Amino acid sequence: MHASKFFISTLKEAPSDAEVVSHKLMTRAGMIRKLAGGIYNYMPLGLRVIRKIEAIIRDEMNRAGAIELLMPLIQPAELWQETGRWDKMGPEMLRVKDRHDRDFIIQPTSEEVVTDIARAEIHSWRQLPKNFYHIQTKFRDERRPRFGVMRGREFTMKDAYSFDRDDEAAGRSYDIMFDAYMRIFRRLGLEFRAVAADTGAIGGSRSHEFQVIADTGEDLIAWCPDSDYAANIELAQASALIAERAAPAQALAKAPTPGTVRCEDVAALLALPLDRTVKSIVLATDKEGKTELWLLMLRGDHELNEVKASKLAGLKEGFRFATEAEIFEHFGCKPGYLGPVGLKKPVHVIADLTVANMSDFVTGANEVDAHLTGVNWGRDLQEPEAVADLRNVVEGDPSPDGKGRLSIQRGIEVGHVFFLGTKYSEAMNCTYLDETGKPRTMVMGCYGIGVTRLVGAAIEQNHDERGIIWPQSIAPFEVVICPVGWSKSEQVRETATRLYAELTAAGFDVMLDDRDERPGVMFADWELIGVPHRITVGERGLKEGVIEYQNRRDAAAQKVAPDAVRALLGEPA
Amino acid sequence: MHASKFFISTLKEAPSDAEVVSHKLMTRAGMIRKLAGGIYNYMPLGLRVIRKIEAIIRDEMNRAGAIELLMPLIQPAELWQETGRWDKMGPEMLRVKDRHDRDFIIQPTSEEVVTDIARAEIHSWRQLPKNFYHIQTKFRDERRPRFGVMRGREFTMKDAYSFDRDDEAAGRSYDIMFDAYMRIFRRLGLEFRAVAADTGAIGGSRSHEFQVIADTGEDLIAWCPDSDYAANIELAQASALIAERAAPAQALAKAPTPGTVRCEDVAALLALPLDRTVKSIVLATDKEGKTELWLLMLRGDHELNEVKASKLAGLKEGFRFATEAEIFEHFGCKPGYLGPVGLKKPVHVIADLTVANMSDFVTGANEVDAHLTGVNWGRDLQEPEAVADLRNVVEGDPSPDGKGRLSIQRGIEVGHVFFLGTKYSEAMNCTYLDETGKPRTMVMGCYGIGVTRLVGAAIEQNHDERGIIWPQSIAPFEVVICPVGWSKSEQVRETATRLYAELTAAGFDVMLDDRDERPGVMFADWELIGVPHRITVGERGLKEGVIEYQNRRDAAAQKVAPDAVRALLGEPA
Repeated sequence: MHASKFFISTLKEAPSDAEVVSHKLMTRAGMIRKLAGGIYNYMPLGLRVIRKIEAIIRDEMNRAGAIELLMPLIQPAELWQETGRWDKMGPEMLRVKDRHDRDFIIQPTSEEVVTDIARAEIHSWRQLPKNFYHIQTKFRDERRPRFGVMRGREFTMKDAYSFDRDDEAAGRSYDIMFDAYMRIFRRLGLEFRAVAADTGAIGGSRSHEFQVIADTGEDLIAWCPDSDYAANIELAQASALIAERAAPAQALAKAPTPGTVRCEDVAALLALPLDRTVKSIVLATDKEGKTELWLLMLRGDHELNEVKASKLAGLKEGFRFATEAEIFEHFGCKPGYLGPVGLKKPVHVIADLTVANMSDFVTGANEVDAHLTGVNWGRDLQEPEAVADLRNVVEGDPSPDGKGRLSIQRGIEVGHVFFLGTKYSEAMNCTYLDETGKPRTMVMGCYGIGVTRLVGAAIEQNHDERGIIWPQSIAPFEVVICPVGWSKSEQVRETATRLYAELTAAGFDVMLDDRDERPGVMFADWELIGVPHRITVGERGLKEGVIEYQNRRDAAAQKVAPDAVRALLGEPA
Repeated sequence: MHASKFFISTLKEAPSDAEVVSHKLMTRAGMIRKLAGGIYNYMPLGLRVIRKIEAIIRDEMNRAGAIELLMPLIQPAELWQETGRWDKMGPEMLRVKDRHDRDFIIQPTSEEVVTDIARAEIHSWRQLPKNFYHIQTKFRDERRPRFGVMRGREFTMKDAYSFDRDDEAAGRSYDIMFDAYMRIFRRLGLEFRAVAADTGAIGGSRSHEFQVIADTGEDLIAWCPDSDYAANIELAQASALIAERAAPAQALAKAPTPGTVRCEDVAALLALPLDRTVKSIVLATDKEGKTELWLLMLRGDHELNEVKASKLAGLKEGFRFATEAEIFEHFGCKPGYLGPVGLKKPVHVIADLTVANMSDFVTGANEVDAHLTGVNWGRDLQEPEAVADLRNVVEGDPSPDGKGRLSIQRGIEVGHVFFLGTKYSEAMNCTYLDETGKPRTMVMGCYGIGVTRLVGAAIEQNHDERGIIWPQSIAPFEVVICPVGWSKSEQVRETATRLYAELTAAGFDVMLDDRDERPGVMFADWELIGVPHRITVGERGLKEGVIEYQNRRDAAAQKVAPDAVRALLGEPA
């Protein structure tokens, strides 16, 4: 490609609403232009990256035996009513009426449509397994679209759906997709982790997220450098940090703690380590008109994991944080000084694994400006109603597989594989006949990759103060040739054109910048755009028989003979 | 591709709502499955054809210097309000409100968005010309979607938009696109014509349609076998079939024609040739509260061309057919016996070019059950207020370029190139600075190809009673290998597998049917699906050292040595 035939439109300034580096750089590099909140034009440079990502995904999906089709963007409400998602999905799902006043949705995913296809087309066990996928536009009407293409409203997703005869076969399909995803993200040239994830609202029993590692990621990943354990922090199992409860050594005492509500401040005031304090979090459930309160106890340096809380007996069906009035009624005190000792009304007390083994600890006294010290289970209060893993793991926690200690990293979720089971196939009566002629419900999996989000994630991971640094496999161009004095020097033109032809013939995706700009302008543009390899051809160098080569990650250019540059580029993607 | 890894789902019966052969065959072949009216799942076979069409289009668009980007499906109403199309577009444009109650549309085309891009990104004459295109899903909420993918609601279109500094430059961009379209449709392997077309409601001054020739087409094309004249019948210029008006030879007379209203019947009753009769068509216009009537006179064997009528002075601003009451008021008679002689009230009389040169002709007498014979201009009635081309050309009419006679064919419009002028750029203030620093409005063209419609059109043109016959360049597979006795004969498996490997290596897109089906089942499937080349490998043949080859257009298979089959296939697409 010649720059004069392409469209390059870099900007000095990032848009004022850009909160993250990928949004800023994609806009400045001319990859995207905002059309409306969360809706972007993909400019020629941006589209090239998307197409390269799609090609890698398609290649590996096909290799894994998945079959590409294309399901419509606009889907009839009836199918979504069959599974109940018409009612369950909130305002994120965009609904539209056609001219005949019929209800449609603009697809956020395609479980319903693909299950409708499977029940119509697959009749026999002989046709299984099948895995259908498409790479298609999606729409989710985010309340607050942000982070550029990372949380847009209109975006491109690859979504695949597997159909199997039973759980075991579906597990194999899951494993095949898991392996395909590993190959995809490796080929994309990104640092990533496959982490065990919560199965959440979709249901199902097995789930992995593929997280691109980036400091700006919204997800926290717990992983073990000494084993292959990795999990989203929502799921990562925390253990008791105290193996056995020690016998009480202190007497129960009340300490004045005026205006001191945070565990950190209480510990400082009382000159105790933070890990001797216990925080009290009060949740409420409303069942059959009856409100019950739940006191969750965590060590002062730990944080509540709401996903774990939502799996507890009694809280499974939904909970909320208790109101101040409810707290006052049960504890006789306002938040900040709460504790499990001497409750006025019945409250379910649940202790985190670590708290359950603590002794001589500090809690609120259920009295303003006061805490209790030397609190001990059994002696000062009943044993907790339940003991459970309630907290987020932290850096240095033992790995649940017993093979070392956990590290915590931030990640951006770009892929998800999910064992769905029969959630959709049962609701939509998607069955096949087994060898004995008996109808059986198909077992499903679903597998998504956020194509446009990947563009943003790749940049969040790979950039510097000058701009983007693309992995070669998804760079809009792999090599840029910058001729200095394009219009003036025949020698420069000839060398640049010859190199362009040679490298293109060698399979590289090459850009020749024939805009006749000054070197500074060209260099700034291509460093912003993030092309991995830059070759500069100038008259002065040619007199000495050299051109300049600079890798995007290099600090400076090196002089090489024109024929030596090929060897510096490695292999084309 | 092996059939066992693919998804083949042919049907014996076409859906009952399928009106045209392409819809029937695409459904039976398993290329599409209906999801809702005018909304289809593109099954794996159908998607392969779409992707091949897209690749050819993309290749030629890029070669022609157009630059691919991707504009969103969901576009904010504000831009469509700027051009006035928010109000002008009827219920075919699907409108949707987001969760914040903001108005959006689902794009039927992208003039507004691309003009918005151009005005933001193009500042100088140095950046022109530019041609941006995308291949993107479109939605038009057709009142009555029909003909399968030929008039669907959700469909894929390639739309390109050129921006130029002036009319002359825009004319060059138009010509470049015209040439690219010629190459595209040639490479698609379809019989087609580029025809001059009416510029219609889009405005602009130059327009060509690309029509795939098919008996089932909705459009009529007039073309000259002796020259390169071709035009949509809406536009094709008709000439006077009578060079000079002869002097009156008959006296004016009234003939009783009881119950006889059609020109054919009047001619038969009066034993006159049909081309001596003249039909009277009454239109009405309403301007500033005043209704005027217009009598359009055409020869009995000719048909009114409403597009031509809509361009006449007085009718340009819109017309309708007159009501019976209006006709009675002006003619004193009901329709069927109307004529231009002895009108009761003023009526604008406009004669077709041919009618204006007729003499001794027959018209209605403005009296029920009566016609006039021997009618002559000047003698029996005033010369017409205007003489104009009012009719559709017919087979055998002289070509407007004077180089022979016209033929009429039916076609399916699959592409359209359009000189837009400044319709959108002016409304949206899309300007650039010229060499003198003066802002000037960009001149635009737009260029569409209906990708999914092309699939249907290709089938309408290329099929027989057994199924589809694909042009090789867009066939889902170019070659199918049908092994007879796949599971039983090692020799068959070996030969088929070796041929598969050889032909794949030679660049062909090959399907190996390893489903272990009977030959009849395989042959019926692949003839229905329309693969151009079929190779059958059976044990009996192999004993004689032969396999069978049959082109999809051949009546029977021929026996050839396995090594000789490559030569029969021609070159891969």
